[in-house]
Amino acid sequence: MEAYKHKVQYYETDQMAIVHHSNYVRWMEEARVDYLEQLGCPLDSLEREGVVSPVVSLECRYRSPARFPETVTVTVKVTEFRGVRLRLGYELRGADGRLCAEGKSEHCFTGPDGRPVNMKRSFPEVWEKLAAQVEE
Amino acid sequence: MEAYKHKVQYYETDQMAIVHHSNYVRWMEEARVDYLEQLGCPLDSLEREGVVSPVVSLECRYRSPARFPETVTVTVKVTEFRGVRLRLGYELRGADGRLCAEGKSEHCFTGPDGRPVNMKRSFPEVWEKLAAQVEE
Amino acid sequence: MEAYKHKVQYYETDQMAIVHHSNYVRWMEEARVDYLEQLGCPLDSLEREGVVSPVVSLECRYRSPARFPETVTVTVKVTEFRGVRLRLGYELRGADGRLCAEGKSEHCFTGPDGRPVNMKRSFPEVWEKLAAQVEE
Amino acid sequence: MEAYKHKVQYYETDQMAIVHHSNYVRWMEEARVDYLEQLGCPLDSLEREGVVSPVVSLECRYRSPARFPETVTVTVKVTEFRGVRLRLGYELRGADGRLCAEGKSEHCFTGPDGRPVNMKRSFPEVWEKLAAQVEE
Repeated sequence: MEAYKHKVQYYETDQMAIVHHSNYVRWMEEARVDYLEQLGCPLDSLEREGVVSPVVSLECRYRSPARFPETVTVTVKVTEFRGVRLRLGYELRGADGRLCAEGKSEHCFTGPDGRPVNMKRSFPEVWEKLAAQVEE
Repeated sequence: MEAYKHKVQYYETDQMAIVHHSNYVRWMEEARVDYLEQLGCPLDSLEREGVVSPVVSLECRYRSPARFPETVTVTVKVTEFRGVRLRLGYELRGADGRLCAEGKSEHCFTGPDGRPVNMKRSFPEVWEKLAAQVEE
Repeated sequence: MEAYKHKVQYYETDQMAIVHHSNYVRWMEEARVDYLEQLGCPLDSLEREGVVSPVVSLECRYRSPARFPETVTVTVKVTEFRGVRLRLGYELRGADGRLCAEGKSEHCFTGPDGRPVNMKRSFPEVWEKLAAQVEE
Repeated sequence: MEAYKHKVQYYETDQMAIVHHSNYVRWMEEARVDYLEQLGCPLDSLEREGVVSPVVSLECRYRSPARFPETVTVTVKVTEFRGVRLRLGYELRGADGRLCAEGKSEHCFTGPDGRPVNMKRSFPEVWEKLAAQVEE
């Protein structure tokens, strides 16, 4: 899997002249979307099947601020996936390789009725691809 | 109609230490939503009837930057509404009354099929309220 | 201390027709800014003295999605402050009182040179007000 | 000059399941930043020299909504630049080549004191590069 690259935009800075912390949460999503595409399970296909994947929880630890206009590299790994809850880990690094932030997110999968979907049962081919990625 | 008030947020600033210009576009939307609520035609009721109101065009002229944490006052007026196109004008003023920006927006109304809805015919009570607000 | 109120905006929704999860992080900031103002230690005064307060870490647990155009109430409490690290806890509730999300944030204070400022020593009056708010 | 490409992100959608209109304004900025970099006059170098380039006015006409996760191509052209005011035009096209939006922006250049900088006089090499790009 290739790491995701995000170029810092001017509108992502704040008056501390660093990237506003809420944007890292958005970059984690960008990287997650890209990761699922690379894996062959793009979110938009799942949505066309009526399955959405809301965020259940989120964590971010900020280490060194990202700045305009550097390019930040985000690596994603699957840390847990047993069929219902998906847990991901993220590392965000600046242009010079320094650690900007580390993050975690937890997701569920729900159907059109808002009820949880067991991916192992309902979408075994998606489940298999994701489960095969699990690292500690 | 009461003017809309928006408190400038830290995340709306950029590294020029002023509000990023894209946020004025969002405040125009905030004020528009509020205006329609005050008028008794809230957007969410229209959406429940299957009608959405996308933006067709937008203009903004920036006069004096808004800054964190001042409160900006947005006044809205309807400048044209014959049943299909709705045109609005905006004035955004800082805490001290200075003109921060002036804007215009143009909207249409479309149904679930994406086709234009003639509000005068389909929602005469909404049309009447809006049409009664038209000022030059 | 009065709880902070945020009206959900249209631009905060995503195509799941709920508020995008990154916005809760912004509302936590809105509520924090308001809390510090109510306490008499507004962020902008600190910044004029050369002190900024970046986010060190962040957590959010999503319980029930907020939707346009409801008003969300955010309560803030100080959970730890010994002079350098400030820890806050948040509860975000929907218009009907249901729990939408719970959050935590951790902040430091740094000077113009980017080095940590010991608030107890350098800004004892701010330190005192914040330290007096600590709850478990 | 190469056209700029922006991949639509999930957080840029709204509950109409299209990109929220405020994001086109941000993509115009992304494309402008990229254009100036390609031209050899990056914004961050100018800022290091104490010159910022605020937006004076903005226009956007929305033609066909962009949707997640398509890639939008933005072309930029300089329509006027005599030394103080810079006018740019934008065309935003979807993955299938359809016109999503057209935009215009107008910028000035100001120094650390907030006063206008005459680029022709103060930064002739930047002025020359930009002036050479002017198309009707």
